Amino acid sequence: MSFCQGLWQANQALYQRTLDHPFNRELAAGSLSVERFRHYMIQDAHYLVAYGRALAVAAAKADQAEGVVQFANAANEAVVEERKLHDGFMRDFGISAQDFATTPLTPACHHYTSFLLANSWSESYPVALAGLLPCFWIYAEVGRDIHARSQPGNPYQAWVDTYASEEFHAAVRAVIATIDRVADAADSATRTRMAEAYRYSAELEWMFWDSAYQESNWPTR
Amino acid sequence: MSFCQGLWQANQALYQRTLDHPFNRELAAGSLSVERFRHYMIQDAHYLVAYGRALAVAAAKADQAEGVVQFANAANEAVVEERKLHDGFMRDFGISAQDFATTPLTPACHHYTSFLLANSWSESYPVALAGLLPCFWIYAEVGRDIHARSQPGNPYQAWVDTYASEEFHAAVRAVIATIDRVADAADSATRTRMAEAYRYSAELEWMFWDSAYQESNWPTR
Amino acid sequence: MSFCQGLWQANQALYQRTLDHPFNRELAAGSLSVERFRHYMIQDAHYLVAYGRALAVAAAKADQAEGVVQFANAANEAVVEERKLHDGFMRDFGISAQDFATTPLTPACHHYTSFLLANSWSESYPVALAGLLPCFWIYAEVGRDIHARSQPGNPYQAWVDTYASEEFHAAVRAVIATIDRVADAADSATRTRMAEAYRYSAELEWMFWDSAYQESNWPTR
Amino acid sequence: MSFCQGLWQANQALYQRTLDHPFNRELAAGSLSVERFRHYMIQDAHYLVAYGRALAVAAAKADQAEGVVQFANAANEAVVEERKLHDGFMRDFGISAQDFATTPLTPACHHYTSFLLANSWSESYPVALAGLLPCFWIYAEVGRDIHARSQPGNPYQAWVDTYASEEFHAAVRAVIATIDRVADAADSATRTRMAEAYRYSAELEWMFWDSAYQESNWPTR
Repeated sequence: MSFCQGLWQANQALYQRTLDHPFNRELAAGSLSVERFRHYMIQDAHYLVAYGRALAVAAAKADQAEGVVQFANAANEAVVEERKLHDGFMRDFGISAQDFATTPLTPACHHYTSFLLANSWSESYPVALAGLLPCFWIYAEVGRDIHARSQPGNPYQAWVDTYASEEFHAAVRAVIATIDRVADAADSATRTRMAEAYRYSAELEWMFWDSAYQESNWPTR
Repeated sequence: MSFCQGLWQANQALYQRTLDHPFNRELAAGSLSVERFRHYMIQDAHYLVAYGRALAVAAAKADQAEGVVQFANAANEAVVEERKLHDGFMRDFGISAQDFATTPLTPACHHYTSFLLANSWSESYPVALAGLLPCFWIYAEVGRDIHARSQPGNPYQAWVDTYASEEFHAAVRAVIATIDRVADAADSATRTRMAEAYRYSAELEWMFWDSAYQESNWPTR
Repeated sequence: MSFCQGLWQANQALYQRTLDHPFNRELAAGSLSVERFRHYMIQDAHYLVAYGRALAVAAAKADQAEGVVQFANAANEAVVEERKLHDGFMRDFGISAQDFATTPLTPACHHYTSFLLANSWSESYPVALAGLLPCFWIYAEVGRDIHARSQPGNPYQAWVDTYASEEFHAAVRAVIATIDRVADAADSATRTRMAEAYRYSAELEWMFWDSAYQESNWPTR
Repeated sequence: MSFCQGLWQANQALYQRTLDHPFNRELAAGSLSVERFRHYMIQDAHYLVAYGRALAVAAAKADQAEGVVQFANAANEAVVEERKLHDGFMRDFGISAQDFATTPLTPACHHYTSFLLANSWSESYPVALAGLLPCFWIYAEVGRDIHARSQPGNPYQAWVDTYASEEFHAAVRAVIATIDRVADAADSATRTRMAEAYRYSAELEWMFWDSAYQESNWPTR
């Protein structure tokens, strides 16, 4: 079993809970409220820019020149996706540029992006990558599941279709391959840190969806 | 009004809510449950090590050699405090080294420490310092308030007394002086970022106390 | 006069010395020894990977999402250029993959790349960008000059032609525009640091060419 | 043989060249020109502040809380030493605060400090430490050698005596112990990077002394 397969298996129960989360079930069924979807999209856009920054830091730490290319491109892609959201889904769902600009990060989004940035900046390359993996991998698998379950006439069908993009799945497989390679060469303390970083991100991924469903906000505001 | 006084005033309502939080009121009254205090102490110890790391990054970015000394010493102090907790209050309240080692960071502690690390690593020196300020300043002021209100026979009196340490208050004044100096020299976009970083930390400070009171844990475990 | 134009003017004499350097004069004349050109190409390839890493760090620090895209793409481009060298000019001039792998960085290349990395990691976004500018700008201008002066039958003509690429010049103009924008918003201490970082890189750029001409190596080996 | 002993042995020839360098021989004999000593002291002061910054970054990356304390203290010590130079030896040898402030870093000092900062910021904790080791260890050993050889009436005797400080040697032993521990736990690619970082710093240490002896400056000024 490869290192990444081991991570997947160790976090299988959390993945199942993620699939079963009402946000994802209702998105597939097409019954998710528009408010929750809007909340999610805005936070997703905030998230993607921070994700791009964390990927750029990982690019800078790559052990091989190929990794600089791989993660600089991923950083670029993350922000390009964010730009597309504004001109596509956000417009379709009535979120103006100003709505976006004046909606702050929720605690869940701020927590997840803070962790990704902290982890990419302060940890070694393998650990940085492990923290970045769930957003690629869990997102791709949840997306595939939602796409397969999506009901006819789903108002979110265009969004759900983006999950099935072969280009995205190919990128995910390439990231997994890089992480397996660096994990195989890493010492055991590093592999333990990698598993911890992956776990934190997988949990924060669940909390991100849950926060969108709860439409949570700062208790301090 | 100095830059830091401006920050304080802008966040006055949140400070008042922090003073009024049941955790702090009950700590002053001596009625806080031992479980909540234990929970708090363990998270505080986790927090201090991360705070020391974030301070060390700020030291590395200091605009003047004096700042390297100021924040390298603060980093050292944070971890020395953490060491003292283990040999002092933790022992007194029956928390073994193993209890501590096996108690993971709560979401509130993980969120706050992730933010401090992300902010110190990725932002400029003035913004890094602004994020580090609430833990110095709000903590000192809340402590002074609790110390003043503490009831006779308070089982937490020894802990409450540490808040009154003149050495700690002198360090806080010196940090404020440094931040006022760098804020005065900074451009307006930087001052805006400083205010945002301060606000986030002030909110996460409140959420840290609230989490201890709620004895919160990961919804994903 | 824009901020970047001011930098250019302040360093005009050094630019003139760079144009007049025998390495560049002989490259234009076609009289440069193959050994010196080989030495240069190998160090250039080493340089480009480090330059890509430094650009990726700058991308992570960008004040706007557009900057993440701009510098993540530049990071990608730098390493893509390095890859092309191996399959193109290096092959044409008889440098095998093994020749490259076993040729260490010279002191000049190690000095310049160390500075770029140190500056990108430890300084604020505007200062990081200013350190990265000379390699874009001076290189483009020196290249334009060499291209204009190149003699018929120049054995380095294919190399010299790459300097004239409109795509490269467009990228340089976009970088200058970003730097002018952030410099305009920056405080005066930051602008002073920007000028220092630019100056160091401009000097290290000259020393890089001079080192190739001298075929310099470590005095300690 | 411990990891660090292995590093020492692999770089034995360079160490011998460092001992034999005219700067060190003349310092021991008391025949070094005052100009060369002044040049050295000024660059040493510049160096120490950057060294303190690089140590602070290493502190932030420490794998254990003890390492945060160890290297935050070392960062503090480096700058405290720099402060002492100004009030002690610099005054004794007629270097005013303004002389110092207006003397820029030489290429050798700029190269070495850029490398230390780049290495501490961009590399993992073990590699960061390995780059910081030569300044502790080689300096301590060279100092012991010079102290043993110093001639009666040496005008630099007070300076030479600082090398013999048991406090400094104890700190060096503690750093070696930490590096041996992390090297023992590290994978082989990390140990290779550690050896490379150590080698670069050892070479830059020699070049720093050589530059002082040559009273070198920027060829671009």
